[in-house]
Amino acid sequence: MSAPGIRIGLIGYGYWGPNLARNFNETPGACIAAISDLSKDRLALAKARYPNAEVTTEHDRVLGDPKIDAVIIATPVTTHYPLVKRALENGKHVLVTKPITSKVSEGSELCNLAEKKGLVLMVDHTFIFTGAVKKIKQLVEDGSVGPLYYYDSVRINLGLFQHDVNVLWDLAVHDLSIMQYLHGALPNEVSATGISHFAKQPENVAYLTCFFSDNFIAHLHVNWLAPVKIRRTLIGGERQMIVYDDLEPDEKVKIYDKGVDVKTREGAYQLLVSYRAGDMRAPQLDRKEALAVEAAHFVECINKKAKPITDAPSAVGLVGILEAANESLKGGGRPVKVQQVL
Amino acid sequence: MSAPGIRIGLIGYGYWGPNLARNFNETPGACIAAISDLSKDRLALAKARYPNAEVTTEHDRVLGDPKIDAVIIATPVTTHYPLVKRALENGKHVLVTKPITSKVSEGSELCNLAEKKGLVLMVDHTFIFTGAVKKIKQLVEDGSVGPLYYYDSVRINLGLFQHDVNVLWDLAVHDLSIMQYLHGALPNEVSATGISHFAKQPENVAYLTCFFSDNFIAHLHVNWLAPVKIRRTLIGGERQMIVYDDLEPDEKVKIYDKGVDVKTREGAYQLLVSYRAGDMRAPQLDRKEALAVEAAHFVECINKKAKPITDAPSAVGLVGILEAANESLKGGGRPVKVQQVL
Amino acid sequence: MSAPGIRIGLIGYGYWGPNLARNFNETPGACIAAISDLSKDRLALAKARYPNAEVTTEHDRVLGDPKIDAVIIATPVTTHYPLVKRALENGKHVLVTKPITSKVSEGSELCNLAEKKGLVLMVDHTFIFTGAVKKIKQLVEDGSVGPLYYYDSVRINLGLFQHDVNVLWDLAVHDLSIMQYLHGALPNEVSATGISHFAKQPENVAYLTCFFSDNFIAHLHVNWLAPVKIRRTLIGGERQMIVYDDLEPDEKVKIYDKGVDVKTREGAYQLLVSYRAGDMRAPQLDRKEALAVEAAHFVECINKKAKPITDAPSAVGLVGILEAANESLKGGGRPVKVQQVL
Amino acid sequence: MSAPGIRIGLIGYGYWGPNLARNFNETPGACIAAISDLSKDRLALAKARYPNAEVTTEHDRVLGDPKIDAVIIATPVTTHYPLVKRALENGKHVLVTKPITSKVSEGSELCNLAEKKGLVLMVDHTFIFTGAVKKIKQLVEDGSVGPLYYYDSVRINLGLFQHDVNVLWDLAVHDLSIMQYLHGALPNEVSATGISHFAKQPENVAYLTCFFSDNFIAHLHVNWLAPVKIRRTLIGGERQMIVYDDLEPDEKVKIYDKGVDVKTREGAYQLLVSYRAGDMRAPQLDRKEALAVEAAHFVECINKKAKPITDAPSAVGLVGILEAANESLKGGGRPVKVQQVL
Repeated sequence: MSAPGIRIGLIGYGYWGPNLARNFNETPGACIAAISDLSKDRLALAKARYPNAEVTTEHDRVLGDPKIDAVIIATPVTTHYPLVKRALENGKHVLVTKPITSKVSEGSELCNLAEKKGLVLMVDHTFIFTGAVKKIKQLVEDGSVGPLYYYDSVRINLGLFQHDVNVLWDLAVHDLSIMQYLHGALPNEVSATGISHFAKQPENVAYLTCFFSDNFIAHLHVNWLAPVKIRRTLIGGERQMIVYDDLEPDEKVKIYDKGVDVKTREGAYQLLVSYRAGDMRAPQLDRKEALAVEAAHFVECINKKAKPITDAPSAVGLVGILEAANESLKGGGRPVKVQQVL
Repeated sequence: MSAPGIRIGLIGYGYWGPNLARNFNETPGACIAAISDLSKDRLALAKARYPNAEVTTEHDRVLGDPKIDAVIIATPVTTHYPLVKRALENGKHVLVTKPITSKVSEGSELCNLAEKKGLVLMVDHTFIFTGAVKKIKQLVEDGSVGPLYYYDSVRINLGLFQHDVNVLWDLAVHDLSIMQYLHGALPNEVSATGISHFAKQPENVAYLTCFFSDNFIAHLHVNWLAPVKIRRTLIGGERQMIVYDDLEPDEKVKIYDKGVDVKTREGAYQLLVSYRAGDMRAPQLDRKEALAVEAAHFVECINKKAKPITDAPSAVGLVGILEAANESLKGGGRPVKVQQVL
Repeated sequence: MSAPGIRIGLIGYGYWGPNLARNFNETPGACIAAISDLSKDRLALAKARYPNAEVTTEHDRVLGDPKIDAVIIATPVTTHYPLVKRALENGKHVLVTKPITSKVSEGSELCNLAEKKGLVLMVDHTFIFTGAVKKIKQLVEDGSVGPLYYYDSVRINLGLFQHDVNVLWDLAVHDLSIMQYLHGALPNEVSATGISHFAKQPENVAYLTCFFSDNFIAHLHVNWLAPVKIRRTLIGGERQMIVYDDLEPDEKVKIYDKGVDVKTREGAYQLLVSYRAGDMRAPQLDRKEALAVEAAHFVECINKKAKPITDAPSAVGLVGILEAANESLKGGGRPVKVQQVL
Repeated sequence: MSAPGIRIGLIGYGYWGPNLARNFNETPGACIAAISDLSKDRLALAKARYPNAEVTTEHDRVLGDPKIDAVIIATPVTTHYPLVKRALENGKHVLVTKPITSKVSEGSELCNLAEKKGLVLMVDHTFIFTGAVKKIKQLVEDGSVGPLYYYDSVRINLGLFQHDVNVLWDLAVHDLSIMQYLHGALPNEVSATGISHFAKQPENVAYLTCFFSDNFIAHLHVNWLAPVKIRRTLIGGERQMIVYDDLEPDEKVKIYDKGVDVKTREGAYQLLVSYRAGDMRAPQLDRKEALAVEAAHFVECINKKAKPITDAPSAVGLVGILEAANESLKGGGRPVKVQQVL
């Protein structure tokens, strides 16, 4: 906490911004040097918490400030493209909240710009930095789980009703980022269904199936109008199955030594599927706050000129899935090809 | 338990048959008079439990026995059509396990035959007879829940892997029967996705969306390959929302006084959606075993020549949904119209 | 199920008797040959289920029937002593429900009589035959858990209110049997507190602490007047800790690789206690119905002239704990020595 | 956040101090003006978070600072008496963490001193300020629950092992404060049992029964060595029963419309106890952070010269219970009278 290190400007001090500010301000080698928001009330609160930071209603003063090294953008999706572009043009490293942009074309342009300028462009897919997801990634990579069969997530609650994007763009993007991190490839095709219960509003309940080129399927269920909060993902593999419940205080990841044994009986005509039932194990997880880990990673990537785990090109891949999902939604589940942007 | 009343023959003493036998044998006005099964071991067990019942490996002896008043058919789906037909032709009332047939055409034929003969033809959609579903039905009918927004069910576990029908026909049929009982109408169209992880086997994971003519949507998730058992249904209405968790020992139905208030702001251009958060209530439920209630209902329908709650025409409607779902599954979620059989 | 084998007479067909009848009747080498109960309604139900068994309101006809080899006594505690005595005198093997008697002196007399006659006298401490308790016993015996620190159980619900014995005699006896099975020794001393909320009724809420000669303590909480059902036991050991929740459908036993590391700092003056936090594991358990295992064990003990796991002398030890607990209850928790009957 | 209002000095920036600092600093009409701690690392962290506060390793500089209006003391129990005394003598209002002192005599002296000086002396019994406890208090006061039958709490986890006080003084004090708030009176007598598993260390597992002059009993179970975290309280009343589970994210308080109906049968000789089983209800609770509510209350008491809800005399009553409990612990549960200090 001696030398300030990287001086960070934060655009957007609404719902998520305060969490970003708190974590970055306690990250060694970084400090929050400026905060902008359109609301004067929010800025007053920001000033009380960070008396040494400059606060302003004009984000251009942050984006253009030569003393600022990096910018965090925590604003609505539709504003991401112009703000990130301006920040990169001004030579700032950027961390932007998810999804990176509302169009694949815009996201690709930002990727190219960051690469040309030699700047870090990282996307705040926070879950990738949780102890739970890191543990599951390790179990998939070391072969414990075996070839992946399915990824099934439910992310529902009485959430903030958004008026500019539908519930897939708001919630499913979290699960898509985890799915992509674990499986690697983008889906070939998607089928999405859903409904808006309110005239002229975006879909508030949606279901998305992703088809891949291998024996793997993913399904996501998101809902802004559910009476209970559920954050549960099932990951089925040939050897093990995992239940990841983000609301469990202690045992977020449970690994089941369960599965099927498939045998061929008498002359290959009939398949026998028998179940294996074994122990369950809940491994000890890294309990560090994900945003703190993410903040340290962003600072490290800047200092070492390294590629972030949640880099912009992967994030643009997710936008491609969401674009295809929107088209399928309109067609009542009609399968739609996904743009292979990676 | 004095006079035997209706003498029942049971075809099939495998997994579900013993539950049917036990409940019918303790239903006043009925007794299990004959049991047939292909396995001699199963018959030995049946004989030990029901020393007064005749046991046989030949179902025709039961179907043709003039002392038998009614027949329960608890055999694989594909055998339902010929067995039910034979029973009705022989003048027996019939209770058949779900789904009624594997084709709409076969089911319709059986409906007509039963009507012509003046016999009761009832389908064992057991959940309709639970205290939980009866309570939810009452809340929907008396207007507490308000117009229905969605029905979302998850029915997954490491279940019996079936080789003749896919997981929708095995598990989703339960949820379709509840959905139909609550909402009344058949869906216009469905979109289904899924996968079989084993060569030449039916789909073991599937997702089914049902679209209706009103503001209602239903989604069912079924899986034979899940590490945990989940039986949870969310029912969203304009005024209340319900969580029905069949695995909860005591509080299977929770009613949330939550929802949205929708207002139109300034000249109808923008909709404001704000959340209401109120109390939750878990009502006391009738704890009688559903099969016992169902058995008594079957006996009463026979005695009073009444139409059963789970009558054959409604059950054929569900077969129509499943036929459409199978076609959509092959098309990667392509929407498929549902035959309006009712 | 061919030869009847051991012919069993059951005295008491109330709440628990039907479970005993059902399990013994399906145990190879045994059959229910006679059932007595004071209620004619209960006997009618028994007859409908076991048409081949004799039913009678006079238990002496069962106890004196020369064709009966063994007797199961499922009646109120105060009747155990005379009924078991009569059965043994008539040369019958006996299984009696818990607790064995209401006095240590009576229990000891029965032990001696059974031994003298060479008859099996077993007590229905059902939990000892569950897959869960067997697994925990194995973990304690093989040293995985380490020296035992504590045993803490909660067994509460809105239960049957009994008028002859207090809640310790009704419910705590289950936990005492498990505690004794795991730890081996009887406590030296107990302290019990509790209350009766209704005039002239036995205590309906009670707490019992057992002190042992080693570093182990046990505490039991029982309550007939609780709004929720809880059946949860914590077992703390030096190396591992166990949570045994009998209401969990699948993961009844959870083993925590947690504990403390104790170090002595600088010259033994100060102890450092630091926590170890590791994985949790829920082992696969034997899912056989405990009463079926117990029934087979009783039959085997008779056939092989073997000592049952839940033999009478251990059961008398538990009565000694309960007698001391009653005295302590009257003294507001005053510590009372336990009779060392074993 | 304009005028600073009450200037607060905080003594102790260890585990709990940061929560106090954060909440008081965002309380209108108050600000954290000084922080003292023995550790320079902790002070560096405090300075980074509160750049405008003075930080010092010498608490006397805070206690003696004329610009400080009120002092928060968040240090080990044994230091409370001298620090609070000094603060009051210097004319500061005081908020001290629980328990107020380690002796009744010291606590009473502080009460008298505060009263003489006309200063607010409040104790940080945080749970009294939660939405859950406020709701339960209301249900008890308005007669919904009926006369109280019992209070049963479990507060266990793998907690910080303390070396100066036993687990009752660390954890049970929370439950005692809630119990007292709900029931009003102090117990007449207590019986406590427990054990220390480590030589020369205070008891790490303990059980405490409190006897009252009416038909009410309370029992507390605390444990520093439990593999799972449990924070669950059962409150039984004549008309309703409550389960308060502080770890439930949403439904912390559940009200059961369950209980007993007691009738006298034929000539008052026999009591009939039958159970009522009705609905369960989980009321919507105030979700404000308890410490924020408490901070505002402290500020309001200072400004309005009002008596705090968690005032010092009640807190001294709790110390009396703990002193009696310690004596009973040594006597193996022997009942010990409680000093009636209120």
